[in-house]
Amino acid sequence: MRIDGRKKDQIRHINMTRHYTKYAEGSVYIEVGDTKVLCNVSVEEKAPPFLKGTGEGWITAEYNMLPRATGNRKVRDIARLKVDGRSMEIQRLIGRALRSVVDLKALGERTLWVDCDVIQADGGTRTTSISGAFVAMVDAINKLHRTKPFKVYPIRNFVAATSVGIVDNEKLLDLCYEEDSKAKVDMNLIMTDEGSFVELQGTGEESPFSRTELDELLNLGEKGIKQMIQAQKDVLKMDSLWIGTGGNK
Amino acid sequence: MRIDGRKKDQIRHINMTRHYTKYAEGSVYIEVGDTKVLCNVSVEEKAPPFLKGTGEGWITAEYNMLPRATGNRKVRDIARLKVDGRSMEIQRLIGRALRSVVDLKALGERTLWVDCDVIQADGGTRTTSISGAFVAMVDAINKLHRTKPFKVYPIRNFVAATSVGIVDNEKLLDLCYEEDSKAKVDMNLIMTDEGSFVELQGTGEESPFSRTELDELLNLGEKGIKQMIQAQKDVLKMDSLWIGTGGNK
Amino acid sequence: MRIDGRKKDQIRHINMTRHYTKYAEGSVYIEVGDTKVLCNVSVEEKAPPFLKGTGEGWITAEYNMLPRATGNRKVRDIARLKVDGRSMEIQRLIGRALRSVVDLKALGERTLWVDCDVIQADGGTRTTSISGAFVAMVDAINKLHRTKPFKVYPIRNFVAATSVGIVDNEKLLDLCYEEDSKAKVDMNLIMTDEGSFVELQGTGEESPFSRTELDELLNLGEKGIKQMIQAQKDVLKMDSLWIGTGGNK
Amino acid sequence: MRIDGRKKDQIRHINMTRHYTKYAEGSVYIEVGDTKVLCNVSVEEKAPPFLKGTGEGWITAEYNMLPRATGNRKVRDIARLKVDGRSMEIQRLIGRALRSVVDLKALGERTLWVDCDVIQADGGTRTTSISGAFVAMVDAINKLHRTKPFKVYPIRNFVAATSVGIVDNEKLLDLCYEEDSKAKVDMNLIMTDEGSFVELQGTGEESPFSRTELDELLNLGEKGIKQMIQAQKDVLKMDSLWIGTGGNK
Amino acid sequence: MRIDGRKKDQIRHINMTRHYTKYAEGSVYIEVGDTKVLCNVSVEEKAPPFLKGTGEGWITAEYNMLPRATGNRKVRDIARLKVDGRSMEIQRLIGRALRSVVDLKALGERTLWVDCDVIQADGGTRTTSISGAFVAMVDAINKLHRTKPFKVYPIRNFVAATSVGIVDNEKLLDLCYEEDSKAKVDMNLIMTDEGSFVELQGTGEESPFSRTELDELLNLGEKGIKQMIQAQKDVLKMDSLWIGTGGNK
Amino acid sequence: MRIDGRKKDQIRHINMTRHYTKYAEGSVYIEVGDTKVLCNVSVEEKAPPFLKGTGEGWITAEYNMLPRATGNRKVRDIARLKVDGRSMEIQRLIGRALRSVVDLKALGERTLWVDCDVIQADGGTRTTSISGAFVAMVDAINKLHRTKPFKVYPIRNFVAATSVGIVDNEKLLDLCYEEDSKAKVDMNLIMTDEGSFVELQGTGEESPFSRTELDELLNLGEKGIKQMIQAQKDVLKMDSLWIGTGGNK
Repeated sequence: MRIDGRKKDQIRHINMTRHYTKYAEGSVYIEVGDTKVLCNVSVEEKAPPFLKGTGEGWITAEYNMLPRATGNRKVRDIARLKVDGRSMEIQRLIGRALRSVVDLKALGERTLWVDCDVIQADGGTRTTSISGAFVAMVDAINKLHRTKPFKVYPIRNFVAATSVGIVDNEKLLDLCYEEDSKAKVDMNLIMTDEGSFVELQGTGEESPFSRTELDELLNLGEKGIKQMIQAQKDVLKMDSLWIGTGGNK
Repeated sequence: MRIDGRKKDQIRHINMTRHYTKYAEGSVYIEVGDTKVLCNVSVEEKAPPFLKGTGEGWITAEYNMLPRATGNRKVRDIARLKVDGRSMEIQRLIGRALRSVVDLKALGERTLWVDCDVIQADGGTRTTSISGAFVAMVDAINKLHRTKPFKVYPIRNFVAATSVGIVDNEKLLDLCYEEDSKAKVDMNLIMTDEGSFVELQGTGEESPFSRTELDELLNLGEKGIKQMIQAQKDVLKMDSLWIGTGGNK
Repeated sequence: MRIDGRKKDQIRHINMTRHYTKYAEGSVYIEVGDTKVLCNVSVEEKAPPFLKGTGEGWITAEYNMLPRATGNRKVRDIARLKVDGRSMEIQRLIGRALRSVVDLKALGERTLWVDCDVIQADGGTRTTSISGAFVAMVDAINKLHRTKPFKVYPIRNFVAATSVGIVDNEKLLDLCYEEDSKAKVDMNLIMTDEGSFVELQGTGEESPFSRTELDELLNLGEKGIKQMIQAQKDVLKMDSLWIGTGGNK
Repeated sequence: MRIDGRKKDQIRHINMTRHYTKYAEGSVYIEVGDTKVLCNVSVEEKAPPFLKGTGEGWITAEYNMLPRATGNRKVRDIARLKVDGRSMEIQRLIGRALRSVVDLKALGERTLWVDCDVIQADGGTRTTSISGAFVAMVDAINKLHRTKPFKVYPIRNFVAATSVGIVDNEKLLDLCYEEDSKAKVDMNLIMTDEGSFVELQGTGEESPFSRTELDELLNLGEKGIKQMIQAQKDVLKMDSLWIGTGGNK
Repeated sequence: MRIDGRKKDQIRHINMTRHYTKYAEGSVYIEVGDTKVLCNVSVEEKAPPFLKGTGEGWITAEYNMLPRATGNRKVRDIARLKVDGRSMEIQRLIGRALRSVVDLKALGERTLWVDCDVIQADGGTRTTSISGAFVAMVDAINKLHRTKPFKVYPIRNFVAATSVGIVDNEKLLDLCYEEDSKAKVDMNLIMTDEGSFVELQGTGEESPFSRTELDELLNLGEKGIKQMIQAQKDVLKMDSLWIGTGGNK
Repeated sequence: MRIDGRKKDQIRHINMTRHYTKYAEGSVYIEVGDTKVLCNVSVEEKAPPFLKGTGEGWITAEYNMLPRATGNRKVRDIARLKVDGRSMEIQRLIGRALRSVVDLKALGERTLWVDCDVIQADGGTRTTSISGAFVAMVDAINKLHRTKPFKVYPIRNFVAATSVGIVDNEKLLDLCYEEDSKAKVDMNLIMTDEGSFVELQGTGEESPFSRTELDELLNLGEKGIKQMIQAQKDVLKMDSLWIGTGGNK
């Protein structure tokens, strides 16, 4: 039995609220247990300079924790004049994850700005951000599609993320903060609905891990990803990615 | 009849949710119409350097809009390496407003960090922040009081804020964004439950205003403040500031 | 009798020197008692990006204290890599005050840069800056007018500012630093020569104030503004704003 | 046959020069093919603030590319006032990798500063940095050990890194820049001499990868790591980590 | 005959006003022709960290041009978040010049902050700053001396600076801006009242210069320095550096 | 006899390696004794904004010390968000030195970026940077010349630099760090192969110097410059600057 009563291979309760704010083209408030992230996707009708004239678009992410998302108040980046290293690492990860399932040529010369602001952190904020941001991106793309239909629908796959780890020699799915802080091995998995890997980051800073352990962790993670992708489908009321001109609102 | 169907002297619907996040000592999510602000108050058991050894405490505020709180995505301060001038002005105002009703000697050598993060902006974010932050501050102070009772209860008065303005020659209470952007005169009022002024800021950038107009605006504002203070009392389930050792939770 | 021998409703000695530096289009060195500010206005033949193509111009202000304008040496902003919050607040105020009396369409696609550098501070630096910067702006506009006459003369009104406050229960006009630091209530008034308000900022951080007190302070302030505007007229050798093609030098 | 004539599972030529600069406690110039990195390790007899009084030490890394390490000149971080996101990500990786094989309690309240400055980049700069920095760290630790012997020798294992990837459907070991820029899947492996994983980062931004592909890449990577660790042993003239008081110079 | 009617070896009109601002321990407004610099010296009773406990003091300078000291408005450093390279070079020069004539041991563990703010620039702002700052420093030291007499008077020599250059093949003393911008060779000389060199900086960016030319420029410069030092003595009403406990005010 | 066994007028051993990195258009690794600097010159086919449309080019330098180039680890500029004042001063010097021997009109609208990164510092890093950067610039210019021949070859003269100083009353050529830190007078000389001065910077911060001393130091410096220019000619295998279309590689 885990700290919060879950089984080893049990993901926390997932809740996603679409259209959370009224301005963003895609806006999802995602809760995974006590971890709460607001994911807004904005559409800018301009690609970044390095893509100008190529016909391709881009997806860029920014990740930030509100100062009191954690037990101790965290000083804002602007007060230190530096982006927190951890935030930088995470926002690069979110950007790569979303780009991996989007056909940037089909998207056209646009930028999708993905803002993940953590309201409350209890472990797994990076994976939660990815899972929620995907849904917000679907909403933003579909909103675009309704007014200016894409020739090729730009999203190729669902993508979601979860964490796994080894705590007290037990392999656990979806670590909460208390588990995460005791974990010897910590791994983030990002996968598509077809079961292939988009990104895999495993760290054994406290204690290196074996190939066998890796295999078990991957099995556990695949289980979690499936549940997360099902949750995405449920909230979007879609079984497959949207290709018509009617569809979900 | 106003854009959103209100009467000239009618404030928007107010909703406050206490204990919104689980870590902050005081945490209030305040909604005034479509303006939504998360106000977290954190207690640090240390005064800022300029008060060290004086026995006095301090209250400092930070105000920030999430990038997509508005119709167009706003670049984060850290990306420009500069605090937005408007945010700077507002956070100084919030700090002054809260300090005006607190006995800093009674507070003792502590710092209250007040974080106002705007989730969605539709006019009046600065006044909404002050009204919500006051309630979060009461919760934080009372939490402290339960474990380390104050000899003198440090909060002297309720304080709340609202805006008034002149739009198309009509004096209006509590402007929404659309009204605010057409206003010739714009005034923010911060008052206590005893009806005295803590701060008064009126600007006629588009068109200077007369003393008679000022008087009418003040009348209108006083009305709004009263409603806001009643809402604070309701959500706190308190008629007067807490002085016992039992009391609200 | 006040600290410096003045009556309660007496403004300090005002001195303005026009054409103080040889390069700026408008350059005024203003002294109000021991407060000394150099106000330079520069004309740039380009509007800021957000006004490009609209035919309108803009006025923007920067306010800064030299490090030893005060009793203790103040660290330069660049050494901390941050604009001082108070300076930010003040420069926004100066900009709004000057724009309130200028027809930005008549100004045309230009930017007026207003630099207020405080050489010595003894209370009232923000109001002194506004009063001096107005005169510098008149000189800059008139210089432009002599070579490229405006169809509509862009300045609509004189504008000046002063401070009032409550010190030891006395209402006083034009506080010096020593009075300001003991004031319970502190108010800045910006008014036109027609007696209407451009901006009004009253703060009772130490002790909230009543509507009656507000009224008395406004009366006192109006008196001071009139004297300041007369001083502006005297130094400009103009009774009304310049509309001919001849005129003052 | 690969671009540079190597076999698929062949690592590039490795060359390490110890004691490259005369001041640093550990200084290694590592060349892997045309990738050249200077790795300096400095010992500071003070732990960072968050470890003060715990008896534990810390290892922190900084990674930087000289402006012309690449085909196009890269603007220095200081000119943009921002640490490059990629550099931030890499230096955090280097830090974790080295800490994973060090007993920080045994190290004592000290900080090891690891500077990896890339002189020339041709793919694999992060893995090259880790492999070279490990050797520099051994030299720095051993230098310390000779004057103030450790009770417990703080380094537990050799650690080295390499990259693998899928290019034109071929799994390749140790990608050079040209291969890396065409890779569909890119993976960095950090392993100890006991064959366990310290960190594993695989990215299929261009095209997600399957579990089977993952397995093949891991096999390939393990091969490369073994060669790299052998090279470390050769240059250090050590077969196992140093525990005596005599030993290598 | 030169642009402004001077002879080749004639320095511009020098004017120094002592006690220009009321707060700084030493405050001199120096005018050399149309170049005008406010030099304030502040005394801090604390040495910088690197001198703590050594019994020695330090002198540090900051140099800054007000935005409209020049023909075109110069963007403030804080707006670019970077100290201007030229300012940095100059303030280091001012610091070295003043330290060269002060016995830092005799000064004791104190810091003298020298602020040189250029009000109007017309060539020679760095040399003017040094000459004026010296006088302000004497005032600051003497003020200290009157309350806490030094055992050894810390200032050993007068120091002053001037510029010389080659314009249209003529060697000229004390270049104004127009001459400076046409100069092929430009040299700044800092010398003591004993005729020895403190610093010598000659630049032939436009055209290298010969040893003979150097000699002629040095002769010309020595002449200018003598006049500047005489001006310092006149304004200080001192023929030699102050050593009594009475003396100049 | 000096610390390192040299005679008073003896320069340290000079070694220059051309084509040190493979990407830069000019790349020289210069060693003067234990001082080691990597000088890379990059060609950008664009002039800076202030030269746009003039047909002229520009040369700009950046100087930086690696953190462990010195006995104590130096914090990177980016960690302090400020360019080190000394680096700023030096890079401006390097830029002026190289521009002084180049015909910027003949260069055409291009920018040469000169990066001097100090790998190991043992005195004279600025003069070493200039001497090495000149050779790298010749290589970059000649590379350009081979593909797009210049009508007028843009380099007019060889330029090199050395330091001289007074240590324990002895005049010494080319100070190493230990000598430099004891020097009473320190002078940097930059001269062309024709024996004229490009820049001359002498500082007697510890003790002012006389004209006679200056003369002796200049004699000593001229000697050192000649040797350095001979070393440049040797490594470039050129006796005079290249004007043909064949020539050195």
